Amino acid sequence: MHKRLLLFVLCLLGGLSAAADSKSPVDYVDPFIGTTNFSVCHPGAVRPHAMMSVVPFNVMGSDLNRYDKDGRWWSAPYEFTNRYFTGFAHVTLSGVGCPEMGTLLVMPTSGPLSVDHRNYGSAYQDELATPGYYANYLTKHNIRCEVTATDRTSIERFTFKKGEAHLLMNIGDGLTNETGGYIRRASPTEIEGSRLCGTFCYNAQAVFPLYFVMRVSKVPREAGFWKKQPLMTGVEGQWDADNGKYKLYKNYGRELAGNEVGYYFTYNVDEAEQIEVQVAVSFVSVDNARRNLAHEQQGCDFEKVRQEARRAWEKTLGVVSVEGGTEAQRKIFYTALYHTQIHPGILQDVNGEYPKMQSADNGTTQGNRYTVFSLWDTYRNLHQLETLLYPERQTDMVRSMIDMYKEWGWMPKWELFGRETWTMEGDPAIPVIADTYLKGLRDFDIETAYAAFHKSATIPGDSNLMRPDIDEYIQKGYVPMGTYVQDNSGDNSVSHALEYYVADHALANLAEALGKKQDAKLFRQRSLGYKHYYSKDYGTLRPRHTDGSWLSPFNPEDGADFSNAPGFHEGSAWNYTFCVPHDIMGLARLMGGKRAFVDKLQIVFDKGLYDPANEPDIAYPYLFNYFKGEEWRTQEQVYRLLHKYYKATPYGIPGNDDCGTMSAWALFSMMGIYPDCPGSPWYSVTAPTFDKVTLHLDKRYYPDGDIVITAQRPTPDAHLIAQMSLGGKPLSRYRISHQELTKSKTLHFLLK
Amino acid sequence: MHKRLLLFVLCLLGGLSAAADSKSPVDYVDPFIGTTNFSVCHPGAVRPHAMMSVVPFNVMGSDLNRYDKDGRWWSAPYEFTNRYFTGFAHVTLSGVGCPEMGTLLVMPTSGPLSVDHRNYGSAYQDELATPGYYANYLTKHNIRCEVTATDRTSIERFTFKKGEAHLLMNIGDGLTNETGGYIRRASPTEIEGSRLCGTFCYNAQAVFPLYFVMRVSKVPREAGFWKKQPLMTGVEGQWDADNGKYKLYKNYGRELAGNEVGYYFTYNVDEAEQIEVQVAVSFVSVDNARRNLAHEQQGCDFEKVRQEARRAWEKTLGVVSVEGGTEAQRKIFYTALYHTQIHPGILQDVNGEYPKMQSADNGTTQGNRYTVFSLWDTYRNLHQLETLLYPERQTDMVRSMIDMYKEWGWMPKWELFGRETWTMEGDPAIPVIADTYLKGLRDFDIETAYAAFHKSATIPGDSNLMRPDIDEYIQKGYVPMGTYVQDNSGDNSVSHALEYYVADHALANLAEALGKKQDAKLFRQRSLGYKHYYSKDYGTLRPRHTDGSWLSPFNPEDGADFSNAPGFHEGSAWNYTFCVPHDIMGLARLMGGKRAFVDKLQIVFDKGLYDPANEPDIAYPYLFNYFKGEEWRTQEQVYRLLHKYYKATPYGIPGNDDCGTMSAWALFSMMGIYPDCPGSPWYSVTAPTFDKVTLHLDKRYYPDGDIVITAQRPTPDAHLIAQMSLGGKPLSRYRISHQELTKSKTLHFLLK
Repeated sequence: MHKRLLLFVLCLLGGLSAAADSKSPVDYVDPFIGTTNFSVCHPGAVRPHAMMSVVPFNVMGSDLNRYDKDGRWWSAPYEFTNRYFTGFAHVTLSGVGCPEMGTLLVMPTSGPLSVDHRNYGSAYQDELATPGYYANYLTKHNIRCEVTATDRTSIERFTFKKGEAHLLMNIGDGLTNETGGYIRRASPTEIEGSRLCGTFCYNAQAVFPLYFVMRVSKVPREAGFWKKQPLMTGVEGQWDADNGKYKLYKNYGRELAGNEVGYYFTYNVDEAEQIEVQVAVSFVSVDNARRNLAHEQQGCDFEKVRQEARRAWEKTLGVVSVEGGTEAQRKIFYTALYHTQIHPGILQDVNGEYPKMQSADNGTTQGNRYTVFSLWDTYRNLHQLETLLYPERQTDMVRSMIDMYKEWGWMPKWELFGRETWTMEGDPAIPVIADTYLKGLRDFDIETAYAAFHKSATIPGDSNLMRPDIDEYIQKGYVPMGTYVQDNSGDNSVSHALEYYVADHALANLAEALGKKQDAKLFRQRSLGYKHYYSKDYGTLRPRHTDGSWLSPFNPEDGADFSNAPGFHEGSAWNYTFCVPHDIMGLARLMGGKRAFVDKLQIVFDKGLYDPANEPDIAYPYLFNYFKGEEWRTQEQVYRLLHKYYKATPYGIPGNDDCGTMSAWALFSMMGIYPDCPGSPWYSVTAPTFDKVTLHLDKRYYPDGDIVITAQRPTPDAHLIAQMSLGGKPLSRYRISHQELTKSKTLHFLLK
Repeated sequence: MHKRLLLFVLCLLGGLSAAADSKSPVDYVDPFIGTTNFSVCHPGAVRPHAMMSVVPFNVMGSDLNRYDKDGRWWSAPYEFTNRYFTGFAHVTLSGVGCPEMGTLLVMPTSGPLSVDHRNYGSAYQDELATPGYYANYLTKHNIRCEVTATDRTSIERFTFKKGEAHLLMNIGDGLTNETGGYIRRASPTEIEGSRLCGTFCYNAQAVFPLYFVMRVSKVPREAGFWKKQPLMTGVEGQWDADNGKYKLYKNYGRELAGNEVGYYFTYNVDEAEQIEVQVAVSFVSVDNARRNLAHEQQGCDFEKVRQEARRAWEKTLGVVSVEGGTEAQRKIFYTALYHTQIHPGILQDVNGEYPKMQSADNGTTQGNRYTVFSLWDTYRNLHQLETLLYPERQTDMVRSMIDMYKEWGWMPKWELFGRETWTMEGDPAIPVIADTYLKGLRDFDIETAYAAFHKSATIPGDSNLMRPDIDEYIQKGYVPMGTYVQDNSGDNSVSHALEYYVADHALANLAEALGKKQDAKLFRQRSLGYKHYYSKDYGTLRPRHTDGSWLSPFNPEDGADFSNAPGFHEGSAWNYTFCVPHDIMGLARLMGGKRAFVDKLQIVFDKGLYDPANEPDIAYPYLFNYFKGEEWRTQEQVYRLLHKYYKATPYGIPGNDDCGTMSAWALFSMMGIYPDCPGSPWYSVTAPTFDKVTLHLDKRYYPDGDIVITAQRPTPDAHLIAQMSLGGKPLSRYRISHQELTKSKTLHFLLK
């Protein structure tokens, strides 16, 4: 090779490398991933674990939209394939399966004033989204919209064409099924108010107000309220010119409450004139919302906030560096990491105040008080990710959960902004906190946590909010059908019990660690009650009646794709049968041994009985690792599932992201490790996607520092493990402990 | 006569007299007078000119009611003949013709909780009402209800039977056509919030919030919010168990906003247990409502508040003493006085703050800031009554009106809690203030008032909110049809112009008094423009087109009984033809002289063309006094009308009391004097109903003190005047000046 050619090649490689290096993790995040296909993520502006998010809202008001929030069960503020934009929602949920939040809709418009979203909405183009920033162009109004956010506030910049323009704040509509709010005019350029949210997953009692302040950067020519008037029938309707219509309250400047209310600011704008909007929120009070704005934004500087938001994501995403893989894989990876770092988010205002759990009172916290605990989902892998990569955050999350117990007497199940929504089942705080503790994070009040766990695991059902069917569970070892609901079609008895087994296993582990041997023995024994459900006739778990008889007729495939099936919640018997992560060997023995287990599990994948879009079976691919010689099946399935279901496109998540749980599955899987048994400090191992993954661990918690996971692959699509080494020593096991991992510095794979 | 018999008779007379004396004016007030027959007064608890009133609300929710607020045009919170009670309304209007206020409904119930007024309402019995106090017994719930009030707060005492009981605060329903409000839980025994009111007479922009605090005397066993859920159609409705229903927010304790919301307190009560409720209001803020409560009620003492309310009425009603007449006549008289002393009422809170006119800002006043100026009605006689009997109050009312002009640029027309409702027509502040000034009350800023009057009387129509059709009025001397509205059926052109003539006459008088001779001449000339409308063909006023042609076809009887007729507002040509009180002699000349005038006016009464239930023609009976020898007709008609239309029964007022205007007519008429020409300091005289009426004039304003009006009647039904003397000197005129009256000390009638 000529030297000049070599030089050229080296330069080229250096250039490529430099190009690659110049892209930070943030650059790989594509917030449009997971914005269709029912993944219910959104492309809006949000900071890591923030209270505020600013999200384009495009799910109401027009047939231009394929999916309408009122036309079907719909839980996303934004759908990628929709076309009709009706404003920016403030404070939204990412990847949840029930409609909630997505209100405080700020909409810029041009031309004559309209306050009817069926009329003022617009098609849009030129969408752009990066972490903490979103932009689009409203074709009807010729307005460029850009939004960014701080932790509790937003700033939005609208660039107008010359003419009449309006800024609308619509607090009547939204994704939440709750209604009602009020707006008060605080000054010519500022309004404040609150909006009731809640009834998450149609839990009627879980409601809370979202307080807000909205500020505009320019004094309007005119401003006022609107309210859609309730339709009066009969003679009265004839006298009221506004009957059933949107009424404008034009020269009234105090406050307006009601179901469908809003406020408008009207301007004459010059060509290319920009007006900024700032919105601040609080779950405590309007005053706190204003405090949040004063503290997080001094003045009104869009670019500054945008850059700060980017830096916040750089810091969060920077804990993992990857090399190798395709551009698309890096996008999938970092977007997954991005999706896992949205919830839980902070609940407290800048002065530390937050609404106490299930209370009308406020508390004050020193650290972060976290909220939005989708624990039935996130106990499986998301909190394990936090524990590994963000141990300080995870510690604060655990503290938040313990404080909820102190405030209310119960750990959270599916907590939402200080309210328990009772969504899904089980006792999921136990595996979360046990897992955290067992992995060595201990700067929280474990004795109080243990008292909470012991309470929910032992007190009778009539006073046990967490486990209402515990009496049968303890007495019989399983939950019979009809214990919790009379209606078979709504019966989730097996799902309930399976969650209790998992929780009791985690509790046994924790009890052991705390030296409570008797408890450990008791709960471990209870965790094995799943065996009551094993039906030899079907080779699956199967619901049982109180007298011990089996549900009959029975089809283990019933319940797939979120259809109702007695015994199982959001799944079939197949989706749940292997969901005893704490006793896979015991389950295998029930099934007739290793071969029978492996064959049956393989059949689940081969026959399409595996649901990649919901949580109960997401650890299934890793279960082959329990059986020597079968581990390649784990590698094969994980490789296949990643390729099939995770893409660098809006369709790139297989279903509800569930506050990052599905993304966490992909993320762990791409790194080559997966926490397959919540409450046990272990990882199952598979072939990583990247050549090199560096986990920059927090040395305050993990003194040994970075872990480097490397993979040597002879061909680009090599995805089976030929050899492994951990800390430089050969590794032949496919399950490694958290301690091994965090102390070994390196985990190396030779693939084939 | 034997001495013993004489003694007995004297004792008897003495006893009767003592008995009569032991009854104070308050004892003669029957708040049930005017509570049916569309008089729209109410029997609730209210103090003189107070902000607060507590009124039984019985006009919704059941077929037990003959009149339902939603079934027809309905403007009363209470109807005597209805039977279904749904709570106590707080802050209501007395005697107005449009639905407004009548919300903040407090209802006590027993048995299982229901928050649907169609269900929780009750029949009632044992109603009792005295000034400042109302009581009834709810037969469904077995609850005795008693209510009384301070100026800005209420106290309500409920006596229960043993069992489960509830106190409901319903802010969703009410008489007002506005909707929406919010409630916030302040403590276990206190809630606060606001309710939007307004759209009076379907004026969409005249809206304002009513702030409140509600306190209960006993900590509830349980409490919570409710909201009627908007009906969702389609699939969503199936998931929401509360869809379209009243939803209880049971364990939520922050705040709730919406269209149909309320709050409940639940108790276990013992037999005969009493629980008190206090409600305080403000038009400024919740904080001020709480201040009002703290200032006006220290602690919770029902009897104390009740006695104070009685004393307040004793003081107010005590300015007139009557002797003679029947018990029923004394009831009619004092109840009429009571009805005149409800509106206008105070708008400011105890700290002096009030909502500035047509503004989002608050002002602070030293004296009383008055509100609820139904001026199209009250300029005719009610403010004249205030000027005579309550000059300090009238001065404050005038100051309030002038302050409105200072705050907003316009005098009030029909002002309601700081908002101009633009109800009816004209420029009625002019006659009110001119009349006051010309009668010698001068402690207000007359120059500013004059500036306001000059403005509305002279500036062009396109910027003249008070007189939008002034251009034609000035140019042609009359308002042609179609100037103000295109639709003939809604045309009120003649009514508009007639009000302007009256106002311009008053303004001319005022200008003269202020030495503005040129202005006086101009406005007096304008006040005579009514002649343009006189149709010789019909002998009545008749609408004219812009080109001067007459409305044709034309029937001067069209428009009676509130039917629509072009040109005339709420009346026929007959009801308006004599409504030029400032130029009766000129009108008579137009009509062909005294005889023709008198005959025509007599025909109005004889043929039933006189409407005793609306304002335009209420001075008619006094117009005979302008013609020597015809005065007996005035005496005859006044006597007849008083007997026919004013009774000591719920039916005892002929129509809408119009904030006391109809009552003021009866009151003046029964005293024998009537201010027949607003803006002229004169009274027309007729035979008084009582033997002796003593007006205890305020010596700070009228140094000569009491006026005693006596009547010597040879037979009980003598009602024609044989002789008169004023200040001891024979009187042969039937119109006397305000100065003559107030300086003469006595006015004596010998009747026949």
